[in-house]
Amino acid sequence: MARIAVIHGPNINMLGKREPGVYGSVNYEQLNEAIARQGARLGLSVAIHQSNHEGALVDLIQGQAGAADLIIINPGAYTHTSVAIRDALLAVGIPVIEVHISNVHKREAFRKKSYISDIAVGVIAGFGADSYMLALEAAARLSGGGK
Amino acid sequence: MARIAVIHGPNINMLGKREPGVYGSVNYEQLNEAIARQGARLGLSVAIHQSNHEGALVDLIQGQAGAADLIIINPGAYTHTSVAIRDALLAVGIPVIEVHISNVHKREAFRKKSYISDIAVGVIAGFGADSYMLALEAAARLSGGGK
Amino acid sequence: MARIAVIHGPNINMLGKREPGVYGSVNYEQLNEAIARQGARLGLSVAIHQSNHEGALVDLIQGQAGAADLIIINPGAYTHTSVAIRDALLAVGIPVIEVHISNVHKREAFRKKSYISDIAVGVIAGFGADSYMLALEAAARLSGGGK
Amino acid sequence: MARIAVIHGPNINMLGKREPGVYGSVNYEQLNEAIARQGARLGLSVAIHQSNHEGALVDLIQGQAGAADLIIINPGAYTHTSVAIRDALLAVGIPVIEVHISNVHKREAFRKKSYISDIAVGVIAGFGADSYMLALEAAARLSGGGK
Amino acid sequence: MARIAVIHGPNINMLGKREPGVYGSVNYEQLNEAIARQGARLGLSVAIHQSNHEGALVDLIQGQAGAADLIIINPGAYTHTSVAIRDALLAVGIPVIEVHISNVHKREAFRKKSYISDIAVGVIAGFGADSYMLALEAAARLSGGGK
Amino acid sequence: MARIAVIHGPNINMLGKREPGVYGSVNYEQLNEAIARQGARLGLSVAIHQSNHEGALVDLIQGQAGAADLIIINPGAYTHTSVAIRDALLAVGIPVIEVHISNVHKREAFRKKSYISDIAVGVIAGFGADSYMLALEAAARLSGGGK
Amino acid sequence: MARIAVIHGPNINMLGKREPGVYGSVNYEQLNEAIARQGARLGLSVAIHQSNHEGALVDLIQGQAGAADLIIINPGAYTHTSVAIRDALLAVGIPVIEVHISNVHKREAFRKKSYISDIAVGVIAGFGADSYMLALEAAARLSGGGK
Amino acid sequence: MARIAVIHGPNINMLGKREPGVYGSVNYEQLNEAIARQGARLGLSVAIHQSNHEGALVDLIQGQAGAADLIIINPGAYTHTSVAIRDALLAVGIPVIEVHISNVHKREAFRKKSYISDIAVGVIAGFGADSYMLALEAAARLSGGGK
Amino acid sequence: MARIAVIHGPNINMLGKREPGVYGSVNYEQLNEAIARQGARLGLSVAIHQSNHEGALVDLIQGQAGAADLIIINPGAYTHTSVAIRDALLAVGIPVIEVHISNVHKREAFRKKSYISDIAVGVIAGFGADSYMLALEAAARLSGGGK
Amino acid sequence: MARIAVIHGPNINMLGKREPGVYGSVNYEQLNEAIARQGARLGLSVAIHQSNHEGALVDLIQGQAGAADLIIINPGAYTHTSVAIRDALLAVGIPVIEVHISNVHKREAFRKKSYISDIAVGVIAGFGADSYMLALEAAARLSGGGK
Amino acid sequence: MARIAVIHGPNINMLGKREPGVYGSVNYEQLNEAIARQGARLGLSVAIHQSNHEGALVDLIQGQAGAADLIIINPGAYTHTSVAIRDALLAVGIPVIEVHISNVHKREAFRKKSYISDIAVGVIAGFGADSYMLALEAAARLSGGGK
Amino acid sequence: MARIAVIHGPNINMLGKREPGVYGSVNYEQLNEAIARQGARLGLSVAIHQSNHEGALVDLIQGQAGAADLIIINPGAYTHTSVAIRDALLAVGIPVIEVHISNVHKREAFRKKSYISDIAVGVIAGFGADSYMLALEAAARLSGGGK
Repeated sequence: MARIAVIHGPNINMLGKREPGVYGSVNYEQLNEAIARQGARLGLSVAIHQSNHEGALVDLIQGQAGAADLIIINPGAYTHTSVAIRDALLAVGIPVIEVHISNVHKREAFRKKSYISDIAVGVIAGFGADSYMLALEAAARLSGGGK
Repeated sequence: MARIAVIHGPNINMLGKREPGVYGSVNYEQLNEAIARQGARLGLSVAIHQSNHEGALVDLIQGQAGAADLIIINPGAYTHTSVAIRDALLAVGIPVIEVHISNVHKREAFRKKSYISDIAVGVIAGFGADSYMLALEAAARLSGGGK
Repeated sequence: MARIAVIHGPNINMLGKREPGVYGSVNYEQLNEAIARQGARLGLSVAIHQSNHEGALVDLIQGQAGAADLIIINPGAYTHTSVAIRDALLAVGIPVIEVHISNVHKREAFRKKSYISDIAVGVIAGFGADSYMLALEAAARLSGGGK
Repeated sequence: MARIAVIHGPNINMLGKREPGVYGSVNYEQLNEAIARQGARLGLSVAIHQSNHEGALVDLIQGQAGAADLIIINPGAYTHTSVAIRDALLAVGIPVIEVHISNVHKREAFRKKSYISDIAVGVIAGFGADSYMLALEAAARLSGGGK
Repeated sequence: MARIAVIHGPNINMLGKREPGVYGSVNYEQLNEAIARQGARLGLSVAIHQSNHEGALVDLIQGQAGAADLIIINPGAYTHTSVAIRDALLAVGIPVIEVHISNVHKREAFRKKSYISDIAVGVIAGFGADSYMLALEAAARLSGGGK
Repeated sequence: MARIAVIHGPNINMLGKREPGVYGSVNYEQLNEAIARQGARLGLSVAIHQSNHEGALVDLIQGQAGAADLIIINPGAYTHTSVAIRDALLAVGIPVIEVHISNVHKREAFRKKSYISDIAVGVIAGFGADSYMLALEAAARLSGGGK
Repeated sequence: MARIAVIHGPNINMLGKREPGVYGSVNYEQLNEAIARQGARLGLSVAIHQSNHEGALVDLIQGQAGAADLIIINPGAYTHTSVAIRDALLAVGIPVIEVHISNVHKREAFRKKSYISDIAVGVIAGFGADSYMLALEAAARLSGGGK
Repeated sequence: MARIAVIHGPNINMLGKREPGVYGSVNYEQLNEAIARQGARLGLSVAIHQSNHEGALVDLIQGQAGAADLIIINPGAYTHTSVAIRDALLAVGIPVIEVHISNVHKREAFRKKSYISDIAVGVIAGFGADSYMLALEAAARLSGGGK
Repeated sequence: MARIAVIHGPNINMLGKREPGVYGSVNYEQLNEAIARQGARLGLSVAIHQSNHEGALVDLIQGQAGAADLIIINPGAYTHTSVAIRDALLAVGIPVIEVHISNVHKREAFRKKSYISDIAVGVIAGFGADSYMLALEAAARLSGGGK
Repeated sequence: MARIAVIHGPNINMLGKREPGVYGSVNYEQLNEAIARQGARLGLSVAIHQSNHEGALVDLIQGQAGAADLIIINPGAYTHTSVAIRDALLAVGIPVIEVHISNVHKREAFRKKSYISDIAVGVIAGFGADSYMLALEAAARLSGGGK
Repeated sequence: MARIAVIHGPNINMLGKREPGVYGSVNYEQLNEAIARQGARLGLSVAIHQSNHEGALVDLIQGQAGAADLIIINPGAYTHTSVAIRDALLAVGIPVIEVHISNVHKREAFRKKSYISDIAVGVIAGFGADSYMLALEAAARLSGGGK
Repeated sequence: MARIAVIHGPNINMLGKREPGVYGSVNYEQLNEAIARQGARLGLSVAIHQSNHEGALVDLIQGQAGAADLIIINPGAYTHTSVAIRDALLAVGIPVIEVHISNVHKREAFRKKSYISDIAVGVIAGFGADSYMLALEAAARLSGGGK
């Protein structure tokens, strides 16, 4: 049973309270419940984490060594600014899927830059909360399962 | 029953014969069969198209007006160079999902530029043939169905 | 009687169906009728062409050698990306007027780049379908006629 | 009867004495006479202004509030450098047509930059003195008249 | 009585000990006392916060939802690097005034870039500790009070 | 009693008539009255000047030598384009506060460039007419007075 | 006997009619005859193709799989704009020699960019029709023959 | 006897009062006397002009047609920003020598840009008031005289 | 006896587990033991710190005021992104040596940018764990000791 | 009999000892023998020169005035950095063919820049030692001979 | 008696034989004679040097320590590429005048870059051989003599 | 006994005479004596070379093949401009340590560019003459010796 660490970056915990025109109306608790349900449906062992702190996210990623087979990360704002998170992902050497709720390409120019994409297996962006559901589907397929 | 047009851009027809290190070993026929199966499973009506010609892709997209409810497009090399395809998608006004087999962010710098991403609903890249399967899943969810 | 080739680039054939906020409500057939009327009024022999294919536009331009005295071209999306159309225009050596329906300067940054402007006699942009009427007026004046 | 302010920027008053290879042989007085004739022919009330001073052009534009229905401006060198003229045009809120005698795209790279184009209705460049005649034609059409 | 959250970013706590040529001789305690006095004088309820941690600042800003009517923030070094703080401010949707003790425009080129300015109501920089006094004055005016 | 020269650049005289969404509804006369009142309240001797002419602003600034102790300048559009005004301010060597009615960081990219900021004491932008009131407050504080 | 596909891109068919100052006076038929003669002299089996259509060139290149041992391509204008042709060449995996009639380095800046050079064996440019003769010589040498 | 127009741009009239570390201690009156003496010594007819107004400088330059055989201009701050002065110099077609008191290459980066240098005969910068003396010497040599 | 603070940035604690091709096979504990031994050998008082948190590193650096005579810092990923660490180092005003285990110049382009180098005494990079040994040697020499 | 100067730039003398993966296994002596043989075969008088010194190469080129009818130069590393060699070639005014052993387009980005290409007749790169053989063939053709 | 070292960079020795349209018809010997005459006339002790070698120019400049009071250098092509010559001039600390025969601003873009200008007293360019005569005049004035 | 070639680039021979604020007060002879002593102490065989000539440095490096086991190079100004030295180092394939006396990151922007760093083992900069001592220490450690 593949172990998936879902890691939410900064401000994802504000989902539902935050710019619904950009991020949709699903709230943070609903998102996590949907992630849990989708994980269960796909036969994945899913653990969910969140932090607003770059350093805490680095700690968290380092802690996945031996604990997770695949990381689904929505690095939020740190996507565009954090080399430390990139380095932590490189250090643990676990396959990564990058997820975004909004379509970053429709927004400010600085959101086009990702320090994660070129070290990820793949990227899914723009489908709202469903971006995570698709990433779990992808994780299941990468783990030899999935639909 | 949602009507989905899957549009493959240039050189996608070479799949299986082309740089397997980059694009994987699934061949073009197998890809299309998998797309058809996934469409059927999700209750979608799927039509598949391919062309190496930018103009033919423009014609094709124009022809989707009234014929498709959603376009899944892998614009291939034209992702990075074609304003004409962007304009055709804007002209028909049908929701679009952008798909890439390879992770374009791991490759030449010019592949980071997309003329499609900022007018798409979302983008899925890097999962090999599974990128299409995920896009169909996304299409089903956008159409109110899917798992 | 001066012979004018009016060449419409990609997606111009969608006029009227396409983003009326940007392109106005005149449709493609009405545009061509207005061009024909304006040509007749100004004593010009006008032939109208359209293609969504860059290569077909190159063929078309090559074919104007000996057939047209002046080209009015709206290269559409190819304005910003086609060196081939530029080279075809240079190859036939016929004077060119560049026309745009919308004001390209109000739109995406990439629409400021034109591969045609610096080899054209002049440029007219932003007047909707009237851009063509003004171009025909300009053509008549360049041919020693016009109002 | 639509009121048109034609505003010539710096050095336009040198027309005919100035680089005929670039600007043609029509002189400044002839240009203004042609403008007056074309205005009369089209049923427009035309007032012509010129200044070499950026600030005077700002004053002039501010003075058009309530006095003109449309401005045809050839900002000359200030096209490329004057935010003040842009702001004056924005402040009075009168529709603007930007005109150039020469084809600015054939000249120094810095002439490609315009602080006016993206706030204008449209742009006409490269037809010599006829650029103004076409702009008046466009003005007439925008005012519900014209040919 | 308007509630104002004053948020000091990294190294502001070093004020008085830190590069007096750049930041002046007022120390951190004196600054906060002056802020409290100015708040009292203007009839504002002022709460003061500081952290050197980007994530803690994000937490802090998230916590202002329902607790503050206006945020005065000196993001310090994070001005130039933190998309996460920008996103937190966008997420809570409280009006923001950006403050700097030094004139950032006189310093290293990278200090010209702010991720906050374009989402703030306004910006005040260069007046030393008085920058905060002016910001409180501005806050009072924005709240319908002030001098 | 500190002598303050308030210098308004181009188009500030249009205040109230000009893009109220950007500049607010206070008109130019009301602004100047508010400036006079705030100066009086703060015990400052205030003289107000305006010109749309870059050269006249240079003359004006040169004339402040020996006449003003501090300059509050809103250089308007010349902020972004005038080295001459910068040089005049450097030549007279009087401390300068730069003021903007709108938040220039929310607008066109070219408005981020200021030829004045790095030679000013400080910058205040985005508070509407209140930007001047805050600048006078800052001037009073710099002159050893103020609240 | 090595099989060589010579592929001419857009507007090469205009040779002789097109800007003789840039491209020389040899015409297209003479060029192809010279290519045939040089191929024969060097013991190469040469097939010559031309198209103005990017997509047709992609089709053509795809068709060389198993049919040619080496491709000599003059991509013309598509050199500077076509990722699709690059991808087709990568897909078939046949060694490529890039040829230009004119010296692209003497012309517009955008002609310095080639999407082909870094995936070619080598590049020959500037020798007029002789560029092809040299490329055939190179092909013969690469095939173990040549002079 | 060659007629030389010496044209001083903005803030040159502040010489002696302005940043002596940059511009030296010679004042404006002394500079003009030295120019007059040097002109007399070299047998040149010299007329001296100054303005802080870009438009006035344009007027002044236009007025040199038929009145001067050579222009020595120190465009001051307008060196870096004025296309209008460039165009005026091109319009009158009189040979120009560009002069700077300070060494512009030692100062802010924006002072490296000159709109005049590439249309001047030559440039002399950095010798303080002597830059003008050398320019007059150069003028005399260009006029067939000089030392 | 000179007091040296050795500060390890993010992911340095993964040494030995992390990309050995880039960082070598010495692990984090061995590194610290070697640092301690080298410090002892050189007669330096060495304290070692590590954090993955930018803010914690800022706190740590602030805490060195009065506690350390010299800082040896390997800012890891924060080298390239942290103005806050730069500002903390400037605030405490203690001499700094910047150290990197890998040769950052051989890696991704963004690793060439350092916010620390221009405020450090010197930089040592590329010698694996020995980079620290050399930095301690340098520290000893700067403190008037060393070999 | 046409006189050809073959000029090898820096490090070409290391051929065979130097990065065989990039430059091939032919050594420097073999290269020169092959050049001599090819020259003889084509009826050319060939003189071969080499230097690692930019200045010596400039001297050498200056010395070709009256001694050579055509220069074949492989400027090696100086291709990318030497304006002096460019100027020497311009000064002697002898036609030049630029040659590279490796395909410079496959290597570091700085190798795309050539100070020679735009003043050469043509460029040949990427064919190993054969690049010279093709250049001699080109030289023979330019001299009216060759195959 | 002031000692002046006149240092000619690469290809200056070709004067008269080299592109007369750019450099004029005075030859190298005549230039040096004119320099000697002008030196004598101005009471300067002049020594003239030339080399095509960057390193030899560095040696030459180093040798001026104690031997020259002022250096007049025309660095030729090395103006744009040599940090070594800049460093040599900084190392000897002798005042420098930079001279160019042609107006570098009218030529290729790369000639605008100078590694010397910002460390020179001043720059004189574009007056042909007279640039040196003016530089000697400037040298005399700087030495307290001159006209 | 490891053989170390220490190679000083241009102007290093001026040490002690040259900008002591930048380079310190140790002179060139003292530097070389210290290098010799440190080499002896570490059991290294050290040979010291210097040249101001790029070509001579290339010759020198080529000559180290078979003569040195490691090169310590301070390329001085050529660090920033010499591809030829880079290529020579690549050609001989001997490990390289790059050394700088000053901290290049504190100086002109162009000194940040190094053509050597990414092909070196490591880089040491900013420790004055001690940079060499540290480099020898590093060399000893790389050779299996050192402290």
